[in-house]
Amino acid sequence: MSIREEIIQLAQAARRAARVLAKSSAEIKNQALLKMADEIINAAPEILAANTEDLRNAQATGISGAMLDRLTLNDKRIQDMAAGLREVAAFPDPVGEVEHEEVRPNGIRVGRMRVPLGVIGMVYEARPNVTADAAGLCLKSGNAVILRGGSESTASNRAIGAAISAGLRQAGLPAECVQVIGNPDRQAVTELLTLNGLVDCIIPRGGHKFLTWVAETASVPMIQHGEGNCHVYVDDPADLSMAAEIVFNAKVQRPGVCNAMETLLVHAHSALAFLPVILPRLAKAGVEIRGCEQTRALFSPAQAATELDWATEYQDLILAVKVVPDVAAAMEHIARFGTGHSEAIVTSDYLHAERFLQEVDAAAVLVNASTRLVDGGQFGLGAEIGISTQKLHARGPMGIRELTSMKFIVRGTGQIRK
Amino acid sequence: MSIREEIIQLAQAARRAARVLAKSSAEIKNQALLKMADEIINAAPEILAANTEDLRNAQATGISGAMLDRLTLNDKRIQDMAAGLREVAAFPDPVGEVEHEEVRPNGIRVGRMRVPLGVIGMVYEARPNVTADAAGLCLKSGNAVILRGGSESTASNRAIGAAISAGLRQAGLPAECVQVIGNPDRQAVTELLTLNGLVDCIIPRGGHKFLTWVAETASVPMIQHGEGNCHVYVDDPADLSMAAEIVFNAKVQRPGVCNAMETLLVHAHSALAFLPVILPRLAKAGVEIRGCEQTRALFSPAQAATELDWATEYQDLILAVKVVPDVAAAMEHIARFGTGHSEAIVTSDYLHAERFLQEVDAAAVLVNASTRLVDGGQFGLGAEIGISTQKLHARGPMGIRELTSMKFIVRGTGQIRK
Repeated sequence: MSIREEIIQLAQAARRAARVLAKSSAEIKNQALLKMADEIINAAPEILAANTEDLRNAQATGISGAMLDRLTLNDKRIQDMAAGLREVAAFPDPVGEVEHEEVRPNGIRVGRMRVPLGVIGMVYEARPNVTADAAGLCLKSGNAVILRGGSESTASNRAIGAAISAGLRQAGLPAECVQVIGNPDRQAVTELLTLNGLVDCIIPRGGHKFLTWVAETASVPMIQHGEGNCHVYVDDPADLSMAAEIVFNAKVQRPGVCNAMETLLVHAHSALAFLPVILPRLAKAGVEIRGCEQTRALFSPAQAATELDWATEYQDLILAVKVVPDVAAAMEHIARFGTGHSEAIVTSDYLHAERFLQEVDAAAVLVNASTRLVDGGQFGLGAEIGISTQKLHARGPMGIRELTSMKFIVRGTGQIRK
Repeated sequence: MSIREEIIQLAQAARRAARVLAKSSAEIKNQALLKMADEIINAAPEILAANTEDLRNAQATGISGAMLDRLTLNDKRIQDMAAGLREVAAFPDPVGEVEHEEVRPNGIRVGRMRVPLGVIGMVYEARPNVTADAAGLCLKSGNAVILRGGSESTASNRAIGAAISAGLRQAGLPAECVQVIGNPDRQAVTELLTLNGLVDCIIPRGGHKFLTWVAETASVPMIQHGEGNCHVYVDDPADLSMAAEIVFNAKVQRPGVCNAMETLLVHAHSALAFLPVILPRLAKAGVEIRGCEQTRALFSPAQAATELDWATEYQDLILAVKVVPDVAAAMEHIARFGTGHSEAIVTSDYLHAERFLQEVDAAAVLVNASTRLVDGGQFGLGAEIGISTQKLHARGPMGIRELTSMKFIVRGTGQIRK
């Protein structure tokens, strides 16, 4: 059997499972999630043995320390996977909800019913815990899912997949509701990304290079997870001690993620009091500062920022800093260099706050809060399957509800078109 | 300047206009819509002259009578375009609405604000009135639009576009909010469909061949307008006189459109009383019947239906008819051959109705109503820009609201990520 045939068979089985799943009650789905959690705990020895195999192979090919850490499972991480599934079981089930029901003049009742997307293809790198997390979110939203992690985590993902299948069967659901592609050949991913008609949606997660490759390869509709070149703009007037906490948090709390701040913009009136306080504090925390001329005049250790710095998502302890004349210039800079992820203003001016909220074009726009808060858990979506930077379908953190679609339902009593 | 450069310049101008439009009030946009309507009426002589030129060229290349009819403008059609724009001005403006605002435990208020998509590329065939209709819907929803109709309507579309530009300028909006691609070269469309980053969404309208070509060519996210292989299933028990009206309407009222019925499914218990009544009535209205064996036993003029008939969207006065043992078999047939457009059941059984509504996977699922009612106007969306058969973003008739996206807005008082 060719790789293409193998993936087509998988996808056909997923479609059959999706039809069963779409009409399964929340009760059944929740039972399956709890059984999946139990089975992951039961299979901990097998999962850890598989993970040891993956780690041994990875070390042989010489991958980096950070990658090895992401790949590593231990008892705590296995407990966390199970806990994640139990949490998802406790969330409300959005499938079947009807919104905006309206009676039309001819008497038909038109509503929109929330339904699963169908079959989701999830492709990701490294972390094997994504296998369990994504399986849980897709199952809860009534979708069958085909999972394909990085080739370096093949054995771990297979072992987790086997535990999930066992849980599904115990709850009376088809094991094909969640399938892990065991074939480490990259062609398997290419086939999955181009199975239009069999796969309804592709969700990728991973680094910039991987996401670009997926976007170029996929013909199935996909959710884009773009870069996060995020800004915090400190306005005038602004509470500068609040600004310091927000700026420090947005840069330092976890610099390697997409909602971390990459460029700090400061109103010229605030710069004099603010930059000499915040920049030494950031530098002390290990942040390298690259600033415009005005910034460097206020903080001499700063290197000169270039055009490229404004456009770069460092995902590291590096910060570009620019002094701007007003909120309009800040928004202009964001419109030019931002990637539409998360953009924040720190201000005490009501009109500036409202203008920023309305005019800045990004998945999330914040007033007086850290960009690091842009997250499914923080926003109350429960868990998140990713953060979308596209405008169609879902924008920003995506939870269970964002894995569904709305169909129109019409209840009539014999109405026809005149 | 190459065609590619020409289209990129157009799109860059559209992006600038979109930023102005996104922050324009409903008042300004409505004023622009009314001015656009006035200018179309004022420019009627120029528009008709351009249309005469298009018709002359079209006749010279020998296009069909139906195509010529679609291409033809007259005073009535020009009045209708203007009336359409005035209607859109009267609709409520969804831009800026905030939904689901919630206070999180740390005190941030998280809401979702409805915002325009940005720049929409609308590509379509024949009918020049789409130029005005699409311009109106895109403008109202705050989007800049680049329009490209069929090459046979180039002169008409240019003339309509000029009138629209005049209206926009009178209202103080950039003329580039609505741009018509005047270049009849098909490469202009190809360029538009692949301007990722400059164009946010492609909406195609036209025949099957055109839509397939757009889907294969576009790399910009697009709204799929697929085929409508729609079914009506007459259940047992069912009000057979109601069924007759619905079936007749779904097939005959306008057979050439995507929400017309293509296959009639009938429960075996109802077939005996129903088919000998409805099939002669349909035949009398000019409908050619292609039936399964049981159908042909009850209506001898029917030809034998083949596998291909179940899968065909005739868009014509032809009907495939199949007798099925129960509602499950009907749904199975629909799952296999349906295209996910509009599916109806005629039934008096409560459980059958509910099951059909929940389990049938289509953009619109109807109980006791004609598939022909699946339409933006009938559903209360105002006008429609098309009917989506995809699951991501919008499904079914798309109105103004479906041309927008939701961004997260966060109002904080200094919150950071712990």
